[in-house]
Amino acid sequence: MDVVGLGYCSLDYLGIVPGRPEFDVETMSLSDFAKSGGGPVSTALVALARLGARTGYIGVLGEDEGGAFLREEFEREGVDLGRLRVQAGARSQICMVLVEAGTGRRSILCYRAAGELVLDEADRTYISSARYLHLDGHHMSAAITAARWARADGVKVSFDANRPRPRLDELLPLVDVLIASERFPPAYTGQRDQVRAGRSLLELGPETVVITLGAEGCLCLWGDQVIPVPAFQVDVVDTTGAGDAFHGAFLYGLLQGWELKRTAIFANAVAAINCTRLGGRAGLPTLAEVEAFLSEPGLDKS
Amino acid sequence: MDVVGLGYCSLDYLGIVPGRPEFDVETMSLSDFAKSGGGPVSTALVALARLGARTGYIGVLGEDEGGAFLREEFEREGVDLGRLRVQAGARSQICMVLVEAGTGRRSILCYRAAGELVLDEADRTYISSARYLHLDGHHMSAAITAARWARADGVKVSFDANRPRPRLDELLPLVDVLIASERFPPAYTGQRDQVRAGRSLLELGPETVVITLGAEGCLCLWGDQVIPVPAFQVDVVDTTGAGDAFHGAFLYGLLQGWELKRTAIFANAVAAINCTRLGGRAGLPTLAEVEAFLSEPGLDKS
Repeated sequence: MDVVGLGYCSLDYLGIVPGRPEFDVETMSLSDFAKSGGGPVSTALVALARLGARTGYIGVLGEDEGGAFLREEFEREGVDLGRLRVQAGARSQICMVLVEAGTGRRSILCYRAAGELVLDEADRTYISSARYLHLDGHHMSAAITAARWARADGVKVSFDANRPRPRLDELLPLVDVLIASERFPPAYTGQRDQVRAGRSLLELGPETVVITLGAEGCLCLWGDQVIPVPAFQVDVVDTTGAGDAFHGAFLYGLLQGWELKRTAIFANAVAAINCTRLGGRAGLPTLAEVEAFLSEPGLDKS
Repeated sequence: MDVVGLGYCSLDYLGIVPGRPEFDVETMSLSDFAKSGGGPVSTALVALARLGARTGYIGVLGEDEGGAFLREEFEREGVDLGRLRVQAGARSQICMVLVEAGTGRRSILCYRAAGELVLDEADRTYISSARYLHLDGHHMSAAITAARWARADGVKVSFDANRPRPRLDELLPLVDVLIASERFPPAYTGQRDQVRAGRSLLELGPETVVITLGAEGCLCLWGDQVIPVPAFQVDVVDTTGAGDAFHGAFLYGLLQGWELKRTAIFANAVAAINCTRLGGRAGLPTLAEVEAFLSEPGLDKS
């Protein structure tokens, strides 16, 4: 196994709206609609699988139509489900995602199902078989346990830091690769400057800190190095899953032993390609598609 | 066949939101989520079928997962699909319905698929076999043709008038029972007073005009009679489908030969019961459930 992921998985219903919805007015038209699996860790795993990596998912799905859809999507993509829990009688997580036409701004509305995750020895064996354990802060107790096992068993830990949440002070020292969304470093460290905030995060334990900056690309910090890598310009339809796609692709680069900058360019490319389709996973490219994208004449890859 | 319906059918995804969605803020929580068939004519047919009437649907669905869900729901409810069109390669109509917790105010966002309906002789035979033809203004050309056939063949025509739309001046003279939403009579006739507006509608041809007034109940006009019938008080979860349920139940009463007031009380009861569940069809009652509801002690049925 290359990457085992433990975290969130939801069924997303996405619609493109002309503007902010109002109550009790005429019906508003959706110019497009899509149904897709979503969730940070699970979408990163699908991104990795589509690139050719061997992946497995630890998480909880409901015993409903949504759970069945999500399982089928994982299986079709080749993500191993040997440690998936299907909670009897429970509903799966569901999100409605409204994407504003033109601006790409999003409104995300989620129905949260319970689904507690309790790990056992079989999960430890599963995680130990991987080179990376990827986490997103969902199921935090289980995530901390899994990260401790990973460290003890020589498995690298990567973490998608989307927002401050309880018990991060326990988790972050166990993380090797911290990939944070733009808002996380300032919010968590209290430092407004991303480079300073990133350096504060490095001091907490991670060997590598990457800060994703949306249309600006990303910033990689490793030791004393600070490497900004600009994003690719594409016609954005929907940014849902762009971060998740980036995380999966970044791990793919690390698995190949690529240097940080090459890895970040590759991850930026995968995220950009994913933004050209509606839904978190519809636009995830194969390795050949990323290579074709990166070899387009005139594309600035500096 | 008791009622053949020709009109709109959509797949609804409904979520209960705490307030009006905003863009680019934290994820909002849905306190409940449901998936349901929707659409005025099609939901009225399901309401009728659940009450025990023999119904059939003429309309167009896509050849997709949504279309399959809608067909299965119709079949489970016993609505005949002998004249249903499934459009090869097309997508079905989909709506996202956001219901505000507490107020019940709704924001309806719809993805409209094409799906033109062209009638043929087999449809005429199908319609002629029914006692009522129910329309909602969708597929207007086909609806006018169907209404002409119905009149010629001694089939009564009922029409769910939700909002002014093109070619109503051709359709309304062919209608026997016009059931209008609150906003329709003033908007169409230019008369603000509902009784006056209702009388103007009667002059256009319909034998009976019913105006639904939400929590206020309904107003029935027939000849010189004006009969207001108050609504039942229930704990409303979601008003989606309340009007459609009313139409189906009203037709059920007419099929039984009940007088107007009894029919309206029955229809108010079915609409009220349907408001206690999320989604247009989940709360539709059986005949026994309506009878139990109407025999509850203390319920004002005056």
